[in-house]
Amino acid sequence: MGDTATTHHTKSANNGANDNQIGFKSRVSVIGSGSWGSVAAKLVAFNTLNLSSFHDEVKMWVFEETLQSGEKLTDAINRTNENVKYLPGIKLGKNVIADPDLDNAVEDANMLVFVTPHQFIDNICKSLVGKVRSDAEAISLIKGMEVKIEGPCLISTYISEQLGINCSVLMGANLANEIAEEKFSEATVGYRNNREIAEQWVQLFTTPYFMVTPVQDVEGVELCGTLKNVVAIAAGFVDGLDMGNNTKAAIIRFGLREMREFCKLLFSSVKDDTFFESCGVADVITTCFGGRNRKVAEAFARNGGKRSFDELEAEMLQGQKLQGVTTVREVYEVLRHRGLLELFPLFATVHEICSGCLPPSAIVIYSEKKNIFPV
Amino acid sequence: MGDTATTHHTKSANNGANDNQIGFKSRVSVIGSGSWGSVAAKLVAFNTLNLSSFHDEVKMWVFEETLQSGEKLTDAINRTNENVKYLPGIKLGKNVIADPDLDNAVEDANMLVFVTPHQFIDNICKSLVGKVRSDAEAISLIKGMEVKIEGPCLISTYISEQLGINCSVLMGANLANEIAEEKFSEATVGYRNNREIAEQWVQLFTTPYFMVTPVQDVEGVELCGTLKNVVAIAAGFVDGLDMGNNTKAAIIRFGLREMREFCKLLFSSVKDDTFFESCGVADVITTCFGGRNRKVAEAFARNGGKRSFDELEAEMLQGQKLQGVTTVREVYEVLRHRGLLELFPLFATVHEICSGCLPPSAIVIYSEKKNIFPV
Repeated sequence: MGDTATTHHTKSANNGANDNQIGFKSRVSVIGSGSWGSVAAKLVAFNTLNLSSFHDEVKMWVFEETLQSGEKLTDAINRTNENVKYLPGIKLGKNVIADPDLDNAVEDANMLVFVTPHQFIDNICKSLVGKVRSDAEAISLIKGMEVKIEGPCLISTYISEQLGINCSVLMGANLANEIAEEKFSEATVGYRNNREIAEQWVQLFTTPYFMVTPVQDVEGVELCGTLKNVVAIAAGFVDGLDMGNNTKAAIIRFGLREMREFCKLLFSSVKDDTFFESCGVADVITTCFGGRNRKVAEAFARNGGKRSFDELEAEMLQGQKLQGVTTVREVYEVLRHRGLLELFPLFATVHEICSGCLPPSAIVIYSEKKNIFPV
Repeated sequence: MGDTATTHHTKSANNGANDNQIGFKSRVSVIGSGSWGSVAAKLVAFNTLNLSSFHDEVKMWVFEETLQSGEKLTDAINRTNENVKYLPGIKLGKNVIADPDLDNAVEDANMLVFVTPHQFIDNICKSLVGKVRSDAEAISLIKGMEVKIEGPCLISTYISEQLGINCSVLMGANLANEIAEEKFSEATVGYRNNREIAEQWVQLFTTPYFMVTPVQDVEGVELCGTLKNVVAIAAGFVDGLDMGNNTKAAIIRFGLREMREFCKLLFSSVKDDTFFESCGVADVITTCFGGRNRKVAEAFARNGGKRSFDELEAEMLQGQKLQGVTTVREVYEVLRHRGLLELFPLFATVHEICSGCLPPSAIVIYSEKKNIFPV
């Protein structure tokens, strides 16, 4: 390859996932296979098949389970091309290969899509240390924070530090089943420094029914995806109390503002405009009207707080995990540790309701704490 | 009154509605008596009764009608203390006095609340010229713009210019029937320069279930109240097409961004933060999930655009007026006149659907016009 291969190719030759030199093809692995993981694999597989800069095959790591029929979940996925347990009825693309072996699933991949439940990422990263390509790029679709004694840690930061690779994020108004049905949706890619990497992720996920916008604010984008679940729980309480549209809109607005303040408190680089992206206002709306956290919180309020979230989750979600209540507690701990609970009346009240210290009806009363004439 | 009456009182002595000298009591008139006008009268009347700085009595100008029973609407309101036609079942407060005579209704008032349908304000202002106190303050709760050949004119500007008095605005996530039932709501007062005037309006409208926040951005606040109806029509199309939560959230977000850009285009003073207030994101949410415009637009889409908005409005709204379609056309004219339609694909598409040039399903297709990599 001579110099005539353009400076652009030369420039990006050391960039791993962004490596555009002639003949190089990116190889994508999806780590996770719940409903959102399966949809992510479907989006990605559509593009790897159609774009020459990607290998067709997309490996999807599956936490192996034995189905009631006795068949292994991976075998069923590879036989039917559907995730029969978590996304039945949706063809993933024949180039999606389910693999129960994590090491094998990531081997040779230079683009790693992390989309597991929050609570599994710790063990997954630990077992991947030293096994991923040093020039690999990661993207996290995972909601939630790791709260450690020394402070909160974003999942993207955790992946990045554990594996020694860069990690972007993709968040947005993305109820998985609707994207699976190819209804129009959009998402936001949050990236740190490298715009070309962001564009490659955008290319990998964009389809005619899925519009992706890059934003240079990885912390803001990721925290939106986490914090919106706190707002959704508040919105669920309003639904369960039959308080109406005005109240719900007010609570969503208070939540959006507290999200913004919380993000800026943790990362001064966070941009106001991020909250106008799909990961911000749109995801908050979707989650507050259609998500799991909202649904269980509504049931919690209808039961007057007398049945716990754990109990309702087990009954209502068929094994899917609710991120929101964990996030609520983590956010509360961060605020308490910093002595800032009074500045976040909505976040604080949601935790106090979830933990049984206040009744669900307190969700509105808190607003009286707000000063209507801030300077 | 000596100097000991405090400098605060002296300072505000020339301020008309803000006149706090001992013994001065503000007198409030509400001009309009639809459902929102009646609720506004109820909110105001609660406060004039309880605050010493206001005369108890609130006059409410009513466009006189004869009820089926043969009784005049004003007589029925004054007899029952309810607006039996537009807000039945809700007591307005005994200090609300319905008056069919406009001149009489505003006589002596130094605080004028304008809350009529958009299309009546022209005649009302013309007939009030020279009849209101020169030191009166106005506030407009009216949605809509007057679009003249020379450009758009805000209702608050129109009132101000016609009557030679200052005019603030009150907008927000305010479905009238929910506030009538005293469900928690909030609103935004947009004011021009005088913070004390804004605080007086806040005081006049705030109740334990109605939280009001002042913002120094009268144009931004007022335009939000107008433009949200365009977004609500788009949201109604999405509902009518059964496109789901992700799509609806995306369309609402596109709408919110176009609202912001449109406002800044017309008034460079408009602040980004205004869109995080009740008049912004919260009102958009309420209107896109619970309002009249959404409802009729949903029916329009379900009928494949084959029945006109006029026909559906007459059938579904029992005489109430839909602001949205008029606003859609006015916004379109402003953009067309300035050659900016391409920058506002959502606003343009809504008009093209309403006017029958495009089918309702075009509401999503437009998004392909957007550049996903803006610089």
